[in-house]
Amino acid sequence: MIRTGPLKIKLQLFCGDEIAMGPGKADLLETIAREGSISAAGRALGMSYRRTWLLVDAMNRCWRELLVETSPGGSHGGGAKLTPFGQSILARYRDLEKACGTAAEGETLDALAGDLLPQPKS
Amino acid sequence: MIRTGPLKIKLQLFCGDEIAMGPGKADLLETIAREGSISAAGRALGMSYRRTWLLVDAMNRCWRELLVETSPGGSHGGGAKLTPFGQSILARYRDLEKACGTAAEGETLDALAGDLLPQPKS
Repeated sequence: MIRTGPLKIKLQLFCGDEIAMGPGKADLLETIAREGSISAAGRALGMSYRRTWLLVDAMNRCWRELLVETSPGGSHGGGAKLTPFGQSILARYRDLEKACGTAAEGETLDALAGDLLPQPKS
Repeated sequence: MIRTGPLKIKLQLFCGDEIAMGPGKADLLETIAREGSISAAGRALGMSYRRTWLLVDAMNRCWRELLVETSPGGSHGGGAKLTPFGQSILARYRDLEKACGTAAEGETLDALAGDLLPQPKS
């Protein structure tokens, strides 16, 4: 999710009806890369193990190659890391977000921001 | 909501924690302009009158001026139209969406699209 002043931009890539990549999945990939495990990443993001695993599974089913690979280690205990393919998808998704954020900046957004109130009238 | 191949882009403008403009509100403005009434617009979009009215009310409270003005006509019966200010906000929001959509097109998106499967693996 890109935030530029009062503007939030959300990009989602679809595989059929399934979200193959979006703000939540991209954050999860970054957290898996940092934590080295799916369960630790889920904990860091405040998600259940089940939900975390479902997001990883959806990504791995939506793309030509696996984005996350796990190593065995017992129930919930194995390590996980991004594949080079997963790193590349994540980097390109972030590039798209940046391109949209940059494109949104400028006179039109400034004018809209100037017409917005700081808080809603009650 | 802008759709470019497998990519969906969603832009939201915030006033405090309230969404002042987004895909649903922009569609509602266009429908009110076409239908000439809030209740008819809600019906056309399959929304309850209450939800439709709450969206209009949120917009009118988030911006410097009213976006939608209503004329009296009894319970739910009055007409509604966009103010010139509302037309301008809507047009500028659509411009921002188009700028983002255009920025997202290109090699990076083509490469991502080429790595996506047409349907998730089961």
